[in-house]
Amino acid sequence: MANITKKVSWSSRADESGATGEGTPLLNGSEQPRHSRQIGRLSTVDLEEEMTSDEDSLRGRPKEIPHNEKLLSLKFESLDYDNIENQLFLEEERRMSYMGFRCLEISRWVVCGLIGFLTGLIACFIDIVVEELAGIKYQVVKENIERFTEVGGLSISLILWAVLNSAFVMVGAIIVAFFEPIAAGSGIPQIKCYLNGVKIPRVVRLKTLVVKVCGVICSVVGGLAVGKEGPMIHSGAVVAAGVSQGRSTSLKRDFKIFEYFRRDTEKRDFVSAGAAAGVSAAFGAPVGGVLFSLEEGASFWNQMLTWRIFFASMISTFTLNFFLSIYHNNPGDLSNPGLINFGRFESDSVAYNLYEIPLFIAMGAIGGLLGALFNVLNYWLTIFRIRYVHRPCLQVMEAMLVAAVTATVSFTMIYFSNDCQPLGPEHTEEYPLQLFCADGEYNSMATAFFNTPERSVRSLFHNQPGTYNPLTLGLFTLTYFFLACWTYGLAVSAGVFIPSLLIGAAWGRLCGILLASITSTGSIWADPGKYALIGAAAQLGGIVRMTLSLTVIMVEATGNVTYGLPIMLVLMTAKIVGDYFVEGLYDIHIKLQSVPFLHWEAPATSHWLTAREVMSSPVTCLNRIEKVGTIVDILSNTSTNHNGFPVVMQVTGSDEPAKLCGLILRSQLIVLLKHKVFVELARSRLTQRKLQLKDFRDAYPRFPPIQSIHVSQDERECMMDLTEFMNATPYTVLQETSLPRVFKLFRALGLRHLVVVDDNRVVGLVTRKDLARYHLGKHGLEELQLAQT
Amino acid sequence: MANITKKVSWSSRADESGATGEGTPLLNGSEQPRHSRQIGRLSTVDLEEEMTSDEDSLRGRPKEIPHNEKLLSLKFESLDYDNIENQLFLEEERRMSYMGFRCLEISRWVVCGLIGFLTGLIACFIDIVVEELAGIKYQVVKENIERFTEVGGLSISLILWAVLNSAFVMVGAIIVAFFEPIAAGSGIPQIKCYLNGVKIPRVVRLKTLVVKVCGVICSVVGGLAVGKEGPMIHSGAVVAAGVSQGRSTSLKRDFKIFEYFRRDTEKRDFVSAGAAAGVSAAFGAPVGGVLFSLEEGASFWNQMLTWRIFFASMISTFTLNFFLSIYHNNPGDLSNPGLINFGRFESDSVAYNLYEIPLFIAMGAIGGLLGALFNVLNYWLTIFRIRYVHRPCLQVMEAMLVAAVTATVSFTMIYFSNDCQPLGPEHTEEYPLQLFCADGEYNSMATAFFNTPERSVRSLFHNQPGTYNPLTLGLFTLTYFFLACWTYGLAVSAGVFIPSLLIGAAWGRLCGILLASITSTGSIWADPGKYALIGAAAQLGGIVRMTLSLTVIMVEATGNVTYGLPIMLVLMTAKIVGDYFVEGLYDIHIKLQSVPFLHWEAPATSHWLTAREVMSSPVTCLNRIEKVGTIVDILSNTSTNHNGFPVVMQVTGSDEPAKLCGLILRSQLIVLLKHKVFVELARSRLTQRKLQLKDFRDAYPRFPPIQSIHVSQDERECMMDLTEFMNATPYTVLQETSLPRVFKLFRALGLRHLVVVDDNRVVGLVTRKDLARYHLGKHGLEELQLAQT
Repeated sequence: MANITKKVSWSSRADESGATGEGTPLLNGSEQPRHSRQIGRLSTVDLEEEMTSDEDSLRGRPKEIPHNEKLLSLKFESLDYDNIENQLFLEEERRMSYMGFRCLEISRWVVCGLIGFLTGLIACFIDIVVEELAGIKYQVVKENIERFTEVGGLSISLILWAVLNSAFVMVGAIIVAFFEPIAAGSGIPQIKCYLNGVKIPRVVRLKTLVVKVCGVICSVVGGLAVGKEGPMIHSGAVVAAGVSQGRSTSLKRDFKIFEYFRRDTEKRDFVSAGAAAGVSAAFGAPVGGVLFSLEEGASFWNQMLTWRIFFASMISTFTLNFFLSIYHNNPGDLSNPGLINFGRFESDSVAYNLYEIPLFIAMGAIGGLLGALFNVLNYWLTIFRIRYVHRPCLQVMEAMLVAAVTATVSFTMIYFSNDCQPLGPEHTEEYPLQLFCADGEYNSMATAFFNTPERSVRSLFHNQPGTYNPLTLGLFTLTYFFLACWTYGLAVSAGVFIPSLLIGAAWGRLCGILLASITSTGSIWADPGKYALIGAAAQLGGIVRMTLSLTVIMVEATGNVTYGLPIMLVLMTAKIVGDYFVEGLYDIHIKLQSVPFLHWEAPATSHWLTAREVMSSPVTCLNRIEKVGTIVDILSNTSTNHNGFPVVMQVTGSDEPAKLCGLILRSQLIVLLKHKVFVELARSRLTQRKLQLKDFRDAYPRFPPIQSIHVSQDERECMMDLTEFMNATPYTVLQETSLPRVFKLFRALGLRHLVVVDDNRVVGLVTRKDLARYHLGKHGLEELQLAQT
Repeated sequence: MANITKKVSWSSRADESGATGEGTPLLNGSEQPRHSRQIGRLSTVDLEEEMTSDEDSLRGRPKEIPHNEKLLSLKFESLDYDNIENQLFLEEERRMSYMGFRCLEISRWVVCGLIGFLTGLIACFIDIVVEELAGIKYQVVKENIERFTEVGGLSISLILWAVLNSAFVMVGAIIVAFFEPIAAGSGIPQIKCYLNGVKIPRVVRLKTLVVKVCGVICSVVGGLAVGKEGPMIHSGAVVAAGVSQGRSTSLKRDFKIFEYFRRDTEKRDFVSAGAAAGVSAAFGAPVGGVLFSLEEGASFWNQMLTWRIFFASMISTFTLNFFLSIYHNNPGDLSNPGLINFGRFESDSVAYNLYEIPLFIAMGAIGGLLGALFNVLNYWLTIFRIRYVHRPCLQVMEAMLVAAVTATVSFTMIYFSNDCQPLGPEHTEEYPLQLFCADGEYNSMATAFFNTPERSVRSLFHNQPGTYNPLTLGLFTLTYFFLACWTYGLAVSAGVFIPSLLIGAAWGRLCGILLASITSTGSIWADPGKYALIGAAAQLGGIVRMTLSLTVIMVEATGNVTYGLPIMLVLMTAKIVGDYFVEGLYDIHIKLQSVPFLHWEAPATSHWLTAREVMSSPVTCLNRIEKVGTIVDILSNTSTNHNGFPVVMQVTGSDEPAKLCGLILRSQLIVLLKHKVFVELARSRLTQRKLQLKDFRDAYPRFPPIQSIHVSQDERECMMDLTEFMNATPYTVLQETSLPRVFKLFRALGLRHLVVVDDNRVVGLVTRKDLARYHLGKHGLEELQLAQT
């Protein structure tokens, strides 16, 4: 039988958090910037010590080590993917004509088109700026190196290179660390969480987008072992969240359009489209983008939604392609569908044979092993960073250090390499470094290091056999592996896709060369470019562990479907081997942040748990007509911080639970309090202004905290009638319902609160954290502790 | 406001059906072969008159015209995609260790691998047999034609051709019409319905598979305007349903494996994989296959399931590819991923320019129009067939007539065509007909007609510009359009994909030629092959109206992702234009069969309906401990034919509804009755044998009808305790729940019965038919009538 650790009941959790005296973690943090900043950090560090050093004396430090993967943070709130069907909503829907719904549908398409277009534009902007800045940088360094190669004193070139890199990275790290820490990393874990239904504060804000875009430009130009593809997914999501709402809270502009879309359900759909558009722009993979969104987000597949997401993806890659073709002075030539372009694999050279399949599978296993190693190293590094590198200035310094080291290592490798290759008449190298090679030759190591990573990947895929010698590739793999591992998790905006591909392509090409040399006659079949591609897939799969979507992304980026089967086999093997040791990189970072992430299904061995064991109880209920003072007190209670309240017929002081008649959210109550929708019972005068859905939509998504709402002593005595605003038909389950059944209902419908009833009387409430607690560990079913990290 | 026709309540429906005296339509029909045969017919005809002619005198004919698209048949039962979590099930799950679940997971993968392998083998078998037989046929006819061209008397050749075709088609039509009518058509509508949750009797049986495979070989060899791709999807689904159950009821073999998978939930997952494997084998499109399955079936996306489906798809295309490579004496050359192979589109020739996009969109609109025309014509034809061509012998004769006419028309076209083309040194034509052309030339019309449709498509895509003259293409389009339209819906196994592609490719190539001739210098940009591809996509999209999956299928079949955007735009345009006039072909046929098909969402304007209006009531409830006689009577009541019964605390004679405590299915009750699980209350002796899940699984899916179970008068007085067998935690909704909310719950969880409660008292039951009734018509929300067609 599975064993399980002792359950923490809701009440004991409440006590814990009460003891540490935390604030209200559900709020978006506009009132509490310090908290919100640390709430949102997924990829790198915890700012706790630095930010709250002044408060340390006031309250005891929480006893748990923050960011422990055995804890589940109570800090994260959920999104509500179930429509709140209260009377207001139903009245609006019933008023709307068929034409109204048609117009809505058309505006959804328009929004998706806009999302695709803007995402494509951003990708284009990033690409062009990186291209230009990197071009200047490499030109300057190249000229400098050439000047000093003959006369000696290459150390000056090294210093120049290192300083240039560090300067760029410094800018990128400063804006991220000081202005918007949530913009650090690739943003994929954050978007995964968002689509899963976890509210990550500030993740889809305009400011985040600006910082992300500038940050990624700086880190790529700064020569770090990073890619600009991951951040595109985050950028697309922000664009989607912004465009679909028809306003910008940050810029305080409301265009009074798309007001219907101002709720979690609709917004999530658009964010899915944005993420897909981002993938599509990054890899030129519109279908891969759709599958990525579905894999990460969709709890319920809807044909029209999928089709819209696909539309956004297509528009995005098309926009990028079109503007890049103009930039490259080739208008109308649509051959740059994504930021990374694997180049054209001609069908003849990529044909593979049956007997190569075991080789591919073996490479998949290597990829899985190396990926697991990468993830374990990065895990330890992240733990170290969480403990010791959490001040912004330290983070900036670390980033600069990495930049300098990267430049130094690259330079050393190039300097000591003696792999000289003839410079062909139509050489594809952008910045060939001659160094100590003979005239008409260039240093082969430099093509790998002295280049943007995208170009390096492409040359590993497509350069003629013999362009690299095995030692060069081996050394490159080794150094780049550790550099990339060190780099991921820095306080810069950057992705891990390209470095993974680059590492994999390097050792894959090495495999191809070795195979060709083993079989004397085999130089034809073991095309190094082909093996580079397989290696790249294996390494990437071993690190990120995505499945179907990654296969399709790779196939689309290759532009040739011939490789579908090998890539799938390789990714499958890499995932199986890797999963044996450790989880995927994104999942590790999500776990380290103690995010209550819901997987696809409940753990297999959880049938013996029922809603009774899982639910939180007792539940704070409200009467259908409730005293304002009571509501304010409940909302102000920082020790519980409930967000959903069952509305019942009568709250009895006795133990008898009350009959359920609806469900109301904290955010709704806040709006009601703000608008003072009170029934003044005493004089039985109905002066309350008729509140409309618009009032709720205007407040969405940044509902003010309860502390900012002033309720006078007189008003506290008034009553509020919740009938019109509560969701009168919440989904319910019985106490005896098994956990998998509860889980399925919760996940399939994207719920936030699920009321547990016994004969229509409220006995408990199941929330995301109650379900996310259970997971399959090494010793069977385990239960995570809940904590206020 | 939307208007709505008068609702038919459950009780009035019961009266209706009682009047017509129908049997028990829920049964699989093993006892009532006559009924089951007509139940299952989706694509072609109603056997009512023929089969029940002896009964006509016994009962009045139903007043409604059968197969009216304004009716919803009560005949179709639902599948249960929600696990029946009764005590037996929970005990089994709780007993199972973590390793047990791992083994299950592994066996799921094994089953998917097997499904892929077998589906690939079947595809391979069909392909090789068709190739060989068609080769013989065309060789015989070609020799005959060559013999008679000089001496005159080509009419003999015509007769030979027509007789050969008719003979093949006769065999195909006889086995379909007389042995397994459900095997008619492409099977895609049936699989759509199955995945949607509608039980189509006999659709996934071994006999169906055998008839389907033989039938499709006959009809393709018989020269009909059909393809062998659609039936592959059905074949894959049957393979999946068979393999996953570990037994064959038809062959009476039980391998005692995979017993865990013997329920609707698991079976559906495997059938999804089978359908995907079928698509994958048909078009060499593994990703397209996965998307097809998801588009048609998935109500809930699960990452592992998707990955398994993808695995089955990959194995399927790989198996086909591998065996075909051996057949073509090229072992290891994996260049035949699917039954239809679009040939290689080289990147250079397929590059398109920005200004071509409006042209593509215009072609999409043409495709939509032609598709709508095709569908309307086929709709009228189907109505005609339903009314007048419903005897099997008539059906066989119609099929033979079509075969003869096809041969005659083809021959005439070839005969009167004077489009002679030079026979190149490396000509790709398989059977070039010289006829009246000069030596060294061949008749161009014959390449289109005198060939298997797959080859014709390929030559339209890839033959050099100038190979066809516009008149040939125009005439070919015209004749083939009507032939294909007449052919779809015959009592033969055949798909509509290839004819659609062929029609589209012909007019698309025509467009290309015309465009090139308009712009004098433009012969380079308007590559006819490119326009043939776009035309093929437009025509196919206009007829079947699939979205994302079709895009991906086309892209994968082309083997080149460059065309993603144009194909998407074309399909989107074709769908929008086509939907304006009429639905897709498959949907038309589904509607004509009055299948209660659930779409993705409830109609937009249905928020004013609530569960109270939608539900069936009153509900037949059972007591927790119920008298056997009562149960037998309820089950035997042919006028109601309920399949799910809420179990309640006490059935009161009064109007007060009883408290819900569970839900039990007819199939469960039948098994209980069969095993005589009675509590003999009188002597208070618990002699009942402990029933196990295995007993239910052994009976699945062909539960015996109630009539076959003998219950003695003594036994009627016994009691049955349902506690252990009922699902104690059924999903419930309140009466006030809006229709969209009910719909979402029902669809997302794949339910079959949803209990409507008021304060935990049963007030109604929502089933598939209650939800499928409402649809958006031209005048707003309409309600379909329920009828015993």
